[in-house]
Amino acid sequence: MRDMLGREELITVEKALEILLSYAPLLKRPDEILLPINDSYGLITSRDINSPENLPSFNRSTVDGFAVNSADTFGATESFPAYLNIKAEILMGEEPQFKLEKGEIAKIATGGMLPEGADSVVMLEHTQRVDEKMIEVLKPVSPGENVIQIGEDAMKGECIIRSGHRLRPQDAGALAGLGITDAWVYKKPLVSVISTGDEIVPPDKPVRPGQVRDINSYTLTGLILNAGGIPVKKGLFIDKYEIIKDVVEDSLRNSYMVLITGGSSVGTKDLTAKIINDMGKPGVLFHGVSLKPGKPMIGGVVDNIPIFGLPGHPAAVNVCFEIFIRPVLEIQSGVNEKRFDRGKRTIQARIARNISSGPGREEHIGVTLEERNGELWAVPLLGKSGLITTLTKADGTAVIPLRKLGVQEGEIVEVRLLT
Amino acid sequence: MRDMLGREELITVEKALEILLSYAPLLKRPDEILLPINDSYGLITSRDINSPENLPSFNRSTVDGFAVNSADTFGATESFPAYLNIKAEILMGEEPQFKLEKGEIAKIATGGMLPEGADSVVMLEHTQRVDEKMIEVLKPVSPGENVIQIGEDAMKGECIIRSGHRLRPQDAGALAGLGITDAWVYKKPLVSVISTGDEIVPPDKPVRPGQVRDINSYTLTGLILNAGGIPVKKGLFIDKYEIIKDVVEDSLRNSYMVLITGGSSVGTKDLTAKIINDMGKPGVLFHGVSLKPGKPMIGGVVDNIPIFGLPGHPAAVNVCFEIFIRPVLEIQSGVNEKRFDRGKRTIQARIARNISSGPGREEHIGVTLEERNGELWAVPLLGKSGLITTLTKADGTAVIPLRKLGVQEGEIVEVRLLT
Repeated sequence: MRDMLGREELITVEKALEILLSYAPLLKRPDEILLPINDSYGLITSRDINSPENLPSFNRSTVDGFAVNSADTFGATESFPAYLNIKAEILMGEEPQFKLEKGEIAKIATGGMLPEGADSVVMLEHTQRVDEKMIEVLKPVSPGENVIQIGEDAMKGECIIRSGHRLRPQDAGALAGLGITDAWVYKKPLVSVISTGDEIVPPDKPVRPGQVRDINSYTLTGLILNAGGIPVKKGLFIDKYEIIKDVVEDSLRNSYMVLITGGSSVGTKDLTAKIINDMGKPGVLFHGVSLKPGKPMIGGVVDNIPIFGLPGHPAAVNVCFEIFIRPVLEIQSGVNEKRFDRGKRTIQARIARNISSGPGREEHIGVTLEERNGELWAVPLLGKSGLITTLTKADGTAVIPLRKLGVQEGEIVEVRLLT
Repeated sequence: MRDMLGREELITVEKALEILLSYAPLLKRPDEILLPINDSYGLITSRDINSPENLPSFNRSTVDGFAVNSADTFGATESFPAYLNIKAEILMGEEPQFKLEKGEIAKIATGGMLPEGADSVVMLEHTQRVDEKMIEVLKPVSPGENVIQIGEDAMKGECIIRSGHRLRPQDAGALAGLGITDAWVYKKPLVSVISTGDEIVPPDKPVRPGQVRDINSYTLTGLILNAGGIPVKKGLFIDKYEIIKDVVEDSLRNSYMVLITGGSSVGTKDLTAKIINDMGKPGVLFHGVSLKPGKPMIGGVVDNIPIFGLPGHPAAVNVCFEIFIRPVLEIQSGVNEKRFDRGKRTIQARIARNISSGPGREEHIGVTLEERNGELWAVPLLGKSGLITTLTKADGTAVIPLRKLGVQEGEIVEVRLLT
């Protein structure tokens, strides 16, 4: 885009993301599959999961002690204990075959099933043995105390885990607890990675002067894995229209997202944009973003498959992936919940020195994090943005928003953690 | 431990962890292995990685423009531009076969190699074409401007990635950029999971009254995977000394850590502690911690292998894993750096209602997180700690420290994120 004076006008990060995400509902998604819960950690549920039964299926003690009718303990104190008769011991894993009558209690362990006639459990510590047959209760219990009621954990038919939820360790545990051993989840989306650029060579080949090694396909592979996708490396291609068009076409057929990385010259970028537009509709959605590093970023959609042209700078690849690509990939993976998530990847810290930033762009600066007197400080890494090693030293990137011209030492900034 | 009045005295979380970690240097660790970087994402380096060469190996342009001797641009302005002769165009991926003389410039693209005689690059935007052979430079450049110098990214022999570092996407990218295609990393440690308890049944079997399904081995499997270990499920065993002793013995021989989970009764816990002590030295290090949930936690070491007896409550399993087991597992995995890490898993939020806590214990409460007017609030989940579904609803657990009797609505608390 150009403004009235003919200068190139860049789109803001916010606006670019808004356009991109407006296509989200239509994007191609992987099929669902029924997997044993042991194989589904980290995958996204494709259906609501309802409880097939009441959990617990019986009134269960949460402590070691004595099952009792709470009314029998009312008013009990250390000076005036309630004297109750031990009727039986409830064995773990067994259903009590008796009923408690008034004045009776039964020994029970944590996890044990309450007998009929009992509504609560007195903790062992609040009792004193009188003899084989009798105990003193030194403290009253209220109805339901130290007991988990039938269905209190999950009611039969209740939705336990919603569709679109990433299965965490405790979620798998809960499913096992309900007797659910398999879950419907989405397969992971395949993401094609195409490296381009006449000057780019594979890392295992000798480098002639003027050449650089393929870095970004390795960074992208890791970022795709972290975001829950399956990277498919298509290889390294020279900047020729027909050659790149062929591999993009193949990638559009066989994956859910296409990433083109490599050359960072204007010529290469224009070629990438042209190919995206020639492939289908709507084509390029934005080309050039007011973001540093990451200005040459291209975002597009072709036949409901997102396709990105990434900047050449390694640090820009990382920043652009997290801002533009990860959210789209998560939607395609099936994530569909507003669960708090930003905190997992961004934190707040005080910036350790003044940083100036150009007007009208969002800027991301590599930082290390350190604690000083209990406060977190972000120490900017010096070095040009084109360096490969800047982000290997960084714990995260501090974000200077669009509308700020910089930050003062001590000011609070958002830091996106690099994990 | 008992105090002077004979009451059981629980060890604090801090003290328990200190005792446990004092054994860290001696703990058994997996071997190292040389892997292609494509297979080493998330693994821990076992050796320092040094740069085999200078990176870049040539002075490289970071912009599209004209390579120049900066002295030729001094004083240039829009009104009084410097007129310079275009000597050649430097093709991407090729070494320039000429030298710039005074008054000469050469066209260069981002990533291109500077010719001899040039020390900087004028951006295309700061030039104006006069004719085929000449341009005007409208703004001076300083020496080194828009250029990455030889070795500026990495000097030959410089340590790029230290031993004990978890390889992140950008680290793999940097290695590729240096022509390093394989890395020495530690194998992932095997962690045995032993489920015990007479009342515990597998999730695919019918449950009789008084029985509960094996939940914790599923939660632990996911937690071990998340922490970078390989879970080995040993199966479900009844609470018999000889039986559990046999499987613990086998686990000690064939893995790097042993987790025993299941029954939460005092009897089961005592059996676990006895077996740990009978297995070897030093045996049980602590048994019972001032922590809720998680009080019955047992930690021990036998012949340099850590062995834990976990509480029966599902929420306690999660809390105890993160507090005691993850740090030990990370050390055994080879992690050896003080890289900022807590922020990845804990954040600060305001608690949304008053919570009282028992004196002298650390308490963890399941919370959901929500943003209110730009501030993060932790909303406590109601429900008893024995519930399985509490943590499926939670985004994290809020921590009430040992020395506090509770928190007031609006007070800032640390929240450990459940991921």
